Amino acid sequence: MTTIHELVKRYQGEELALPIWFEEGVLKLIDQTKLPFSEDIVTCSTVEHLAEAIRSMMIRGSGAIGICGAYGLYLAAYVSDGDPDEIKQAGKLLKSTRPTAVNLMKTVDEMVEAINGTGQDLVEGMEQKTVEILERQLAFEYELGKHGAALIEDGDTIMTHCHSGALGGAGYGGRALSVIRTAHEQGKNIHVITCETRPYLQGARITAYELKKFGIPHTLITDNMSGFCMNTGRVDKIVVGSDRVSANGDLANKVGTYMHALAAKENRIPFYTATSSHTIDFDTESGKDIEVEMRDSSEVTEIKGVKIAPEGTNALYPSFDITPNHLISGIITEKGVITAPFTDNLQTVDPKLNKIPQ
Amino acid sequence: MTTIHELVKRYQGEELALPIWFEEGVLKLIDQTKLPFSEDIVTCSTVEHLAEAIRSMMIRGSGAIGICGAYGLYLAAYVSDGDPDEIKQAGKLLKSTRPTAVNLMKTVDEMVEAINGTGQDLVEGMEQKTVEILERQLAFEYELGKHGAALIEDGDTIMTHCHSGALGGAGYGGRALSVIRTAHEQGKNIHVITCETRPYLQGARITAYELKKFGIPHTLITDNMSGFCMNTGRVDKIVVGSDRVSANGDLANKVGTYMHALAAKENRIPFYTATSSHTIDFDTESGKDIEVEMRDSSEVTEIKGVKIAPEGTNALYPSFDITPNHLISGIITEKGVITAPFTDNLQTVDPKLNKIPQ
Repeated sequence: MTTIHELVKRYQGEELALPIWFEEGVLKLIDQTKLPFSEDIVTCSTVEHLAEAIRSMMIRGSGAIGICGAYGLYLAAYVSDGDPDEIKQAGKLLKSTRPTAVNLMKTVDEMVEAINGTGQDLVEGMEQKTVEILERQLAFEYELGKHGAALIEDGDTIMTHCHSGALGGAGYGGRALSVIRTAHEQGKNIHVITCETRPYLQGARITAYELKKFGIPHTLITDNMSGFCMNTGRVDKIVVGSDRVSANGDLANKVGTYMHALAAKENRIPFYTATSSHTIDFDTESGKDIEVEMRDSSEVTEIKGVKIAPEGTNALYPSFDITPNHLISGIITEKGVITAPFTDNLQTVDPKLNKIPQ
Repeated sequence: MTTIHELVKRYQGEELALPIWFEEGVLKLIDQTKLPFSEDIVTCSTVEHLAEAIRSMMIRGSGAIGICGAYGLYLAAYVSDGDPDEIKQAGKLLKSTRPTAVNLMKTVDEMVEAINGTGQDLVEGMEQKTVEILERQLAFEYELGKHGAALIEDGDTIMTHCHSGALGGAGYGGRALSVIRTAHEQGKNIHVITCETRPYLQGARITAYELKKFGIPHTLITDNMSGFCMNTGRVDKIVVGSDRVSANGDLANKVGTYMHALAAKENRIPFYTATSSHTIDFDTESGKDIEVEMRDSSEVTEIKGVKIAPEGTNALYPSFDITPNHLISGIITEKGVITAPFTDNLQTVDPKLNKIPQ
């Protein structure tokens, strides 16, 4: 059996591999809120610490949060010397940190189901399950990257929005950046345009940071410049992540995605989303059924704590927008690239109706 | 004759009227670079001071810069006790501050042509010409506002981008804000959505400041949220300014305008530009012939001096983009609203081919 120690060692030295890892009895993670100016390592010696790190966005991104569910329950087993009640309690606490994070729920449930015995046997069982989940997540990123990279040609400039990368996944490239990183590692000469992604600036802060780490040439633009870049021949493909894909292929992703997709359609530039088959929500018929969460608008009137508008200015902060399926050229998943008609073709990756052998 | 003193007094107490004015032997202006956090008044006792204020963007906007041409030459006459050579010298200096500012060139030329005699007679002549130019610019804004406001209905939410307002004009509302202010003063119950306009944030800083001064209800969004707002029924009309309009109606305006126009077309929302008939460049056939100026990209990697991207990140800063005529519902000018087909209909406001009696 592979131990966590062996897994961590295997990826040591690889840039950004394993954004959270177990080392000498504690969990360690890179504080994403401090990037790119400071690469702080946060140590979590208890599940309470980890819950706080998730709540305060030190670690974020669906893949990374999912892994926290596994690692968190392993930590609980390790600290309690294999007490099943402590592990279950830890699961409840972690689930409460991000009630809408589907990956976190699933991983916690999977760990709880794997509880067997007590003491050292249970600790080892939890370790095995954690390694299994981690390796599965990494395999997902490699597969997604391979399918997506087949769409990228030598010499392409690829535009992306927000952050859909390694630190939000298991450490290879998350979603959009798995596609980009794979193309780069295949030796394709690519360039990336990263949109800064106001208000929280994930594109300027984290995507640019990862691209630099991976040695992939890139250019930063403000979100309102993508249309200009497309219209002047500076963009060949667009690859973004996804918060949710509905059964008809409509895409919920960071606000601004819809406008990039409109400009892509107008300028005949292929627009892809990189996602997991598990992110496709077959219970949601179309984008119209997705409620857009409105967030604290002070992030619009301030940038990194600096006021940019007159005192008392009213603002709006929809956290994401909906890109209708007719603007989407393809949905890249770990099982392949799905194209229109999406309502029919997405069913080939529906775990319940799967027509492709897994 | 109306003296400058009388003109200044007439507008006293009106919010933001006359962003530059003559008072007790000196020119005074609001430092736009400090807005909205500090309302600093800068004093220019010589033409050199004024040239420096223009160069450092303390005063900007085509209308306001044009007025500087008049005021600057009047100041030169006043300071030199009516020396024609000093006035001509001042004209050359002012023209050199912003070589592409057509309004500034025209106003300086008009003032120089009006040079007549010497001494106190010349000072008075320059004062008369300055008053004439100021009143003409204000009349332009009232007329533009009236034509544009006819398009606005009670209850409308109007989206705008960048700053096309009073401080960039003679002080009523410049261009886009003349339309909005007139509709508001007509008693129409309107709401304005102002896009922050990265990288320089004119929409968050200056447009929001003016709307607050005018008592017009408004909401600030980041540029990438306009598509969401349009798609969710939050926008009824769009009115933006213009850097240049080509003979076929293609529009050069602050980067991001093109993407708003694409989203407007997709969501069937009327998209207007407010402009002067003098901004229509009949020598430029289409938007393809307009070269987009690339600016210092440090404004993209920093916001108000705060770094937002990793050290050494490469960035792009196209200062404006081109919105093709098929996305434009109407071009609002001081002579009326021009609709498609633009190549034919714009000729009705061509000063050289004018078919409408002026």
